[in-house]
Amino acid sequence: MNSANAPVWIGVDVGGTKVLAGVVDESGRVSRTARRATPGRRVDIGQVEDALEAAVLEAADGATIAGVGVAAAGFVDAPGERVMFAPHLPWQGEEVRRRLSERWGVPVVLDNDANCAALAEWTYGAARGATSAVVVTMGTGIGGGILMAGRLVRGANGMAGEFGHMQVVPNGHPCECGGQGCWEQYSSGNALVRFARQAMGEQPSVLEEACGGNPDNLTGPMVTDAAEEGDLVARQAFASVGDWLGIGVANLVAALDPEVVVIGGGVSQAGDRLLEPARNALQRSLVGAAHRGVPPIVSALLGPEAGLVGAAELARRAGDQPRR
Amino acid sequence: MNSANAPVWIGVDVGGTKVLAGVVDESGRVSRTARRATPGRRVDIGQVEDALEAAVLEAADGATIAGVGVAAAGFVDAPGERVMFAPHLPWQGEEVRRRLSERWGVPVVLDNDANCAALAEWTYGAARGATSAVVVTMGTGIGGGILMAGRLVRGANGMAGEFGHMQVVPNGHPCECGGQGCWEQYSSGNALVRFARQAMGEQPSVLEEACGGNPDNLTGPMVTDAAEEGDLVARQAFASVGDWLGIGVANLVAALDPEVVVIGGGVSQAGDRLLEPARNALQRSLVGAAHRGVPPIVSALLGPEAGLVGAAELARRAGDQPRR
Repeated sequence: MNSANAPVWIGVDVGGTKVLAGVVDESGRVSRTARRATPGRRVDIGQVEDALEAAVLEAADGATIAGVGVAAAGFVDAPGERVMFAPHLPWQGEEVRRRLSERWGVPVVLDNDANCAALAEWTYGAARGATSAVVVTMGTGIGGGILMAGRLVRGANGMAGEFGHMQVVPNGHPCECGGQGCWEQYSSGNALVRFARQAMGEQPSVLEEACGGNPDNLTGPMVTDAAEEGDLVARQAFASVGDWLGIGVANLVAALDPEVVVIGGGVSQAGDRLLEPARNALQRSLVGAAHRGVPPIVSALLGPEAGLVGAAELARRAGDQPRR
Repeated sequence: MNSANAPVWIGVDVGGTKVLAGVVDESGRVSRTARRATPGRRVDIGQVEDALEAAVLEAADGATIAGVGVAAAGFVDAPGERVMFAPHLPWQGEEVRRRLSERWGVPVVLDNDANCAALAEWTYGAARGATSAVVVTMGTGIGGGILMAGRLVRGANGMAGEFGHMQVVPNGHPCECGGQGCWEQYSSGNALVRFARQAMGEQPSVLEEACGGNPDNLTGPMVTDAAEEGDLVARQAFASVGDWLGIGVANLVAALDPEVVVIGGGVSQAGDRLLEPARNALQRSLVGAAHRGVPPIVSALLGPEAGLVGAAELARRAGDQPRR
């Protein structure tokens, strides 16, 4: 892995469907990326490591690797050693950090993808310069990260930021986690589709045609496109998801009082269609809104690369420490 | 304020009904206390300052005062200068810290009572030795404090820890804050009385006699005593409040993943009658409970003096800083 180039820091985001690696420079810019399909949950962990390695090597493109940060879509333990559980990956308690570091002969750091995305937004993106921030990542579900006094709050088990499973409706909609009424059942990509599906029978909508008459085929992007075209059912689905977003954010703000709230993830690409109802709900729901600063709710800036940017940043910070 | 004695640190807790001052030694022990009635909301702020001064001087008992910490039942701004709003006190944005410090000629620090209680429990009480803790104070409502990486999380506006106004029931019971379905409407001294009152008509209860046949006269201590005697209505009220306590704690643990959760305040004196249903609800409601450490829910140790102990501790820490 030697070359005449300067050593590079690489971040790699291991999601449910794809592994995305990239070289990240000191200003958070991603200069080369490479992707592989995620081998899936029921394979040997060696196959996942092979996919990571292929993506990392392609991104490095022959440059010396200074260190690798791994952002995993799963629960990472407090020391950042193991992936304890991941719904779409075969890791179940393996020492992922040590295994990859030994395999590659370079320093490796590991954290969950939402924490990495939060760190990236704080270092280079929408929360830059804030002393405290809450970052909510809305994809299929909700992930999150908390930044306080200059640090990621990782928690006693490394599981801080699991905002999606805060209960907002007693005996509410069943959640994959086994609970009921979790926030992500009302504010996420899945919730967007469910709300649209429920309303489709009640009034005319271009979604009927988009899903070929079968609501089971409805997807988030179909709802996003229909809302863009002015479809009322799709717009109402965004309004509902946005309202619930603001209610949940109000709960986090009551507890944490952050300087800024950043919304990232795929659903956040809808921008103000999602964020305006969220801001209204925050103003309405937040205790003492008249007697305090209400934090702005802003869009994440780093897009789908936030996870790998944050992972590379973690690796760089870890690498910088011995030199200080 | 001079004497032959060593200088003393004093904490004073300014609550809705009483002002309680005490001398607090380096191991968190309270050696002398003094109390005054709180003059109430509609008086001149000079009268509140007079009451504080009388309590502080009586507690000092002629000793030199090294510094005073003030724990206020209200919203304190982020720098710890002003009480922005207090439902039971006349302060509305006054620079309480500076005024008292100038009046007394000694260093004064100011924070809200729940933060002070949390700091006390962490320094000397039930959260001692933990790297992170959530402290929930259950009185008439719910207050709270968050401790992370060795520090109180105060928030951008000094308003972190307002757990009581996290919404747990959409369109739920109206709250004094103007919201609906706030956590403290289901888990607090007020909720305990409301639950008991609702159930009184439905089955026989010693509470009928305790309140003289008028449910409007029911109080928290009556419910506590009746539960002690085995009254089923009272015990069910505690079970409900405890269950809701655990649901709200599960939300906080999902977000913050603390090492320990401490329950203080008057209602917590019921001990396991409150905490056992809370532990069961936490185990049931917490995401990934099977894959993680579930934090213990424990009783606060410092009782009604926690606020003044924490306030004195804040003053001592502030006083120690220049010497370091």
